[in-house]
Amino acid sequence: NAGKGTTAEKYIKNHKMNSLAATAKSADNNEKVLILTPLARFYPEYWENLLKLTYPRKLVELGFIVPRSSQGDEVLKSLNKAVNKVQSSSKKDERFAKITILRQDTESLDSQSEKDRHALSVQKKRRAQMSLARNSLLFTTIDADTSWVLWLDSDIVESPPTLIQDLARHDKDLIVANCFQRYTTDDGKPDIRPYDFNSWQESDTARELMSKMGDDEIILEGYAEMATYRVLMAHIYNAKDDIHTELPLDGVGGTALLVKADVHRDGAMFPPFPFYHLMETEGFAKMAKRLGYQAFGLPNYLVYHYNE
Amino acid sequence: NAGKGTTAEKYIKNHKMNSLAATAKSADNNEKVLILTPLARFYPEYWENLLKLTYPRKLVELGFIVPRSSQGDEVLKSLNKAVNKVQSSSKKDERFAKITILRQDTESLDSQSEKDRHALSVQKKRRAQMSLARNSLLFTTIDADTSWVLWLDSDIVESPPTLIQDLARHDKDLIVANCFQRYTTDDGKPDIRPYDFNSWQESDTARELMSKMGDDEIILEGYAEMATYRVLMAHIYNAKDDIHTELPLDGVGGTALLVKADVHRDGAMFPPFPFYHLMETEGFAKMAKRLGYQAFGLPNYLVYHYNE
Ligand SMILES: Nc1nc2c(ncn2[C@@H]2O[C@H](COP(=O)(O)OP(=O)(O)O)[C@@H](O)[C@H]2O)c(=O)[nH]1
Ligand SMILES: Nc1nc2c(ncn2[C@@H]2O[C@H](COP(=O)(O)OP(=O)(O)O)[C@@H](O)[C@H]2O)c(=O)[nH]1
Ligand SMILES: [Mn+2]
Ligand SMILES: [Mn+2]
Repeated sequence: NAGKGTTAEKYIKNHKMNSLAATAKSADNNEKVLILTPLARFYPEYWENLLKLTYPRKLVELGFIVPRSSQGDEVLKSLNKAVNKVQSSSKKDERFAKITILRQDTESLDSQSEKDRHALSVQKKRRAQMSLARNSLLFTTIDADTSWVLWLDSDIVESPPTLIQDLARHDKDLIVANCFQRYTTDDGKPDIRPYDFNSWQESDTARELMSKMGDDEIILEGYAEMATYRVLMAHIYNAKDDIHTELPLDGVGGTALLVKADVHRDGAMFPPFPFYHLMETEGFAKMAKRLGYQAFGLPNYLVYHYNE
Repeated sequence: NAGKGTTAEKYIKNHKMNSLAATAKSADNNEKVLILTPLARFYPEYWENLLKLTYPRKLVELGFIVPRSSQGDEVLKSLNKAVNKVQSSSKKDERFAKITILRQDTESLDSQSEKDRHALSVQKKRRAQMSLARNSLLFTTIDADTSWVLWLDSDIVESPPTLIQDLARHDKDLIVANCFQRYTTDDGKPDIRPYDFNSWQESDTARELMSKMGDDEIILEGYAEMATYRVLMAHIYNAKDDIHTELPLDGVGGTALLVKADVHRDGAMFPPFPFYHLMETEGFAKMAKRLGYQAFGLPNYLVYHYNE
């Protein structure tokens, strides 16, 4: 570093020294993690789960983006309370290194019920809005010394406390957990089922479909009316197999997704427009690939989505 | 703001309150400007010109990214010295609000002579590298309270001291000055000529060319072997016309380009891969357009590029 020894040294940040330091031994190496959550609803279960994460808090920064709506006002109240409590702890190692809360200025789609927001017809607009929210959050909070970005949706209410270390030890550019949902079967038994279908390997069928699409058309996963025959990570969960089994992916979901910060710093973002017919987190995986990065998933490593 | 009045208030940044405040009256409104320069060579003339800018320095942050090479080491020495001098001024209003210097970890192309770096064959690789450098610099330095980003190349050695105010008063999402070069004619007279050909309006010929290209092919401006018949801003300079005449653009150069920070925060970056057959600053204009933003140029407002 040619800047060493000069008094202007304090201005110099060694760019990408973190690419060396986003490693399998993240916590041991004091690697900084930025946890980012777009937050349309505040679930206490999400917050409790977040607080259970064992990654050293002095290395963890949190970032939230809250919609500008009356629902958002409610979220902000709950979030403020929660943040305030943890950050006013007398024990320094219980406090997070930094917390940033942003508010959107763009309006959000009105209805947010699970059924409505999954309707195929509204997906393009929704994906665009979500992408803008994610990009703003990301590019406002990422720093020169951020090693990892963990995307964690606000309705992930259960994960292993070692989530960050478990994902980081794979030392991948992008790595995503398998997002399931707890539910009660018709005969009243507790069970689990796949929730997030955005983590997949590309298929010839989908490639064929896309080759015939106009630039502005998008392909979506998890809709019967558009069968893609992609390999969906959600469908190859095996309770008996090693939780650390890796699966190379072409599309990723953002419910619990760990990304090396350099991937984002190179410019990989959540396309708010069709990018090779993909948007948001799936488009992000595609963009990362165009930049020479590879996404992976852990089919047997589960996190759980809230069940409305 | 639902956060007002709670003690957690300090964590809350009002996202996009700056979209309201990236206005025609930038300096009067205390709008923060981030000046970003990828810096492969340090020209004292560039620095002197930068110091002549009259926008209040307490509102100006500077960011540089320097290649990791022996040439970069030299640049860093000169930059350190210059930065150190201005920042140690006893007068507070002579100091910039913040200065960040990053170093790349990726290698740069070896040859940097004007002729070599303009060879068509090396442009794709060069554009990709430049894009990565610009993205890293941008996403490491942009903050929640940045209103404007001024991209200013390190070889811009002459501009009006009111450059920022002059561009900002147009209140455009993206606005670019016309980049010329001073030279001496064959008969020894000083004259000026167009330098940067990346600011243009799209033509049917170029659209036709691109429609036949593979996804990974790019179209470049300013090369005889690839005539596009685009309207080039460089060619419609008129010394007698109003310097504030506006021209809508489809591609922009990055030599002196003012961008509303929200455009970048929404995700518009410099594509290091062919994006609709465009890369770097031209691809950025395209991406901004996909996000609903419009680029403009000022054909009669000149800045001058160094003449090697
Ligand atoms: N800031 C913001 N966050 C949102 C908005 N809509 C959803 N979210 C959050 O984004 C994440 C994903 O959205 P969600 O509705 O759960 O999507 P789904 O479960 O995939 O259908 C969750 O963390 C939501 O709280 C929005 O309009 N603005
Ligand atoms: N960080 C970095 N900056 C570079 C590199 N190559 C050029 N630059 C800078 O990027 C800007 C544009 O590059 P330049 O060579 O002037 O391009 P041209 O004048 O359009 O041919 C200038 O500010 C250069 O100093 C590089 O490899 N790394
Ligand atoms: Mn969800
Ligand atoms: Mn130049």
